[in-house]
Amino acid sequence: MIRLEGLTLLTPEHAIPQGVLALEGERIAYAGPADAAPPRRPGDLVEELPGRVAIPGFVNVHTHLAMQVLRGVADDVALMPWLEDHVWPIESRMTAEDILQGTRLALLEAVAAGVTCVNDMYGSMDRVAEAIGESGIRGMITQGLIGTQDPERDSLRRGVALVERWDGALGGRLRVAMGPHAPYTCPPDYLKEVADYATALKAPVHIHLAETRGETEELLRQGTTPARVLTESGLARSHVIAAHAVFPAEGDIARLGSLDVGVAHCPISNLKLGCGFAPTRSLRDAGVPVGIGSDGAASANVLDPFLSMKAAAWIAKGVAEDAAALRAQDILRMATREGALALGWPDLGALETGYFADVVVVDLRSHRVQPVFDAHSAIVYTATAQEVERVYASGRLIFSEGRHLAVDARQILGAARAAAERLAGQALL
Amino acid sequence: MIRLEGLTLLTPEHAIPQGVLALEGERIAYAGPADAAPPRRPGDLVEELPGRVAIPGFVNVHTHLAMQVLRGVADDVALMPWLEDHVWPIESRMTAEDILQGTRLALLEAVAAGVTCVNDMYGSMDRVAEAIGESGIRGMITQGLIGTQDPERDSLRRGVALVERWDGALGGRLRVAMGPHAPYTCPPDYLKEVADYATALKAPVHIHLAETRGETEELLRQGTTPARVLTESGLARSHVIAAHAVFPAEGDIARLGSLDVGVAHCPISNLKLGCGFAPTRSLRDAGVPVGIGSDGAASANVLDPFLSMKAAAWIAKGVAEDAAALRAQDILRMATREGALALGWPDLGALETGYFADVVVVDLRSHRVQPVFDAHSAIVYTATAQEVERVYASGRLIFSEGRHLAVDARQILGAARAAAERLAGQALL
Repeated sequence: MIRLEGLTLLTPEHAIPQGVLALEGERIAYAGPADAAPPRRPGDLVEELPGRVAIPGFVNVHTHLAMQVLRGVADDVALMPWLEDHVWPIESRMTAEDILQGTRLALLEAVAAGVTCVNDMYGSMDRVAEAIGESGIRGMITQGLIGTQDPERDSLRRGVALVERWDGALGGRLRVAMGPHAPYTCPPDYLKEVADYATALKAPVHIHLAETRGETEELLRQGTTPARVLTESGLARSHVIAAHAVFPAEGDIARLGSLDVGVAHCPISNLKLGCGFAPTRSLRDAGVPVGIGSDGAASANVLDPFLSMKAAAWIAKGVAEDAAALRAQDILRMATREGALALGWPDLGALETGYFADVVVVDLRSHRVQPVFDAHSAIVYTATAQEVERVYASGRLIFSEGRHLAVDARQILGAARAAAERLAGQALL
Repeated sequence: MIRLEGLTLLTPEHAIPQGVLALEGERIAYAGPADAAPPRRPGDLVEELPGRVAIPGFVNVHTHLAMQVLRGVADDVALMPWLEDHVWPIESRMTAEDILQGTRLALLEAVAAGVTCVNDMYGSMDRVAEAIGESGIRGMITQGLIGTQDPERDSLRRGVALVERWDGALGGRLRVAMGPHAPYTCPPDYLKEVADYATALKAPVHIHLAETRGETEELLRQGTTPARVLTESGLARSHVIAAHAVFPAEGDIARLGSLDVGVAHCPISNLKLGCGFAPTRSLRDAGVPVGIGSDGAASANVLDPFLSMKAAAWIAKGVAEDAAALRAQDILRMATREGALALGWPDLGALETGYFADVVVVDLRSHRVQPVFDAHSAIVYTATAQEVERVYASGRLIFSEGRHLAVDARQILGAARAAAERLAGQALL
């Protein structure tokens, strides 16, 4: 058993000072005050970590990891030209090997910033599964399905095969969703086919929804709404992870609250692409679990959940003109436990007995963070990834004091740089 | 002469690969391509820095450094209760020694993040001047003047004495402004007195302006506007640094553009306190130089300009629903050269011959930033303070590879923690 002692344990609402966190196999065996902790046993690995804070590993509820090799490929461009003029052309040249290298590179950044669970949509997902396996963290993956480009249903068959091959693999670390890209790339009949497969496979659904004002306006012209697309297509028979939800139509927030839907809030991507602000507080008030995602690095540039948390908090307060719109506790919950709920993944995202031992140890002792009047506030508003000291995934130490322990970071960086330069057709800085 | 070679030099619009940057005394002796560089001379200190990027030191155009000891003292609270119920009561217990310790602590964070110039408003400014002097960077300082609490004009006299004592001190590294806190704390007659002193002293003016919707509405009820306050009081006879400008009234943006006014945009503080979004693009279009500031750590939590740049970019794009609203080049300019212009400080904020040798060397080679398709984009959208490798201020290396060279960081952190705990009346994490 690994016993981390003398550190502060953060739950969404409380801070337990001088706590004990015991990890046994892939689960948390104890998390709480020292005086109620089980006695030390011979063979326990005991580590004293005064001044540190333990939080659940971050759940990144929406990303495209492989796009790390396209980080910053076309900044300061709106979503549709960004996709059509920049991203899709270069993506058409990406090989499965590029996708592997990009995913590996992304996981270096994610893990170093405390991410222990990702929800990833892309292509060549066998290679993504491979990279997640190596990294030690867990993930939900999905083959992105562009219905308008899938007349023979090749992608759809790959998506189904992915569920059959990988769901529950890696000792349960991997889950697989069905991934219709978006209503604007998947016509109604195609969505119905996907929904039927998802129902039959008992697979969750991961879809981009209401990302731009124009997308929602187009659905309204077609006589429907983003939330109604989920029910009309049958996708809502499954658990749905709706990415973005920036522009729910009139009545959609209540509709989403009545369905088994989690929202993946990606504030940095939504802002940076000029999409707008998701109504996170209204969604949460309607009972929708709202997790925090990065989106891909080609739009958001960073996967760091400390930055995403800050963006989510700042924007919610700024839009509402209310400094209490989302509190630090709300934000930390969204980035961890609520993200797990948004994915429909139980036993994940909390420092509680029986939960997965996905834990981040944060060092708040530096001049970048001190003084600390409140630990939640310090984690959300002040700390950055630089404060991450250790990352445990399924009870295994995979990152410690700046070093990746599960993978060869130097080799990954070199290979990913080479892939990016090949795609760019030129040497990069 | 210090010669930094083989690195990329960033100007607001261009990137010069394989550049040479030569620092002589407190000035830049050469900045440009290698082939046009002056020959090396015996005794030159030559450093090869491949893969690095040099940018001008950041100019933090609005802050209250001493509030670092109050970082996170009351988060998730709106501006007026935050001031009245939390900040002002604890500030009333702060001693000059606390202010020294807080300022020193803030400068650790600021310098490590590449800040080489600050514009600071607070009290006990002799101690702030002392801390800035030790740090090696430059600054504009001002005694904050609360007219409603200054019936005997004690503060005003201190403000005047500060100009007389410190303006141009530290070999020109220190400048002093007159600092009426805000229209809502300084009645019209008081502002006129301050304006007369500023005119006589040829001192710039630093004031909070239009920070909240309520503040602007109150001025409208009084028959004036935020910009008109500057002209009606006579403050606009001097160069004015207007902090925030979130809610200019109808016509105010054009008015500000016609005056000698720079705006200090503090996106993190404005969002976090629930104030709103400053119209940065409209202000710049009207010809107002807009710099980027952090505000104090009690509201913004962080002084890191990499975070402020991201917040400024994200929010401008998100509000405008336009990904091109402010480009990476615009943001980097605002954080450096345009900030210097907003302060009215010439020869500052650019990598050009004759400018002050305030330079930050950023290492973009890590997995947190790679690949780099565009250096401006990488600096603004991807890099964090963790990428700062070296900081030169007035030609002097004051930070290198994580270590502060001008001050004893460990001693400062300990003393500031003690000050914060004394103010809090309890032990802190």
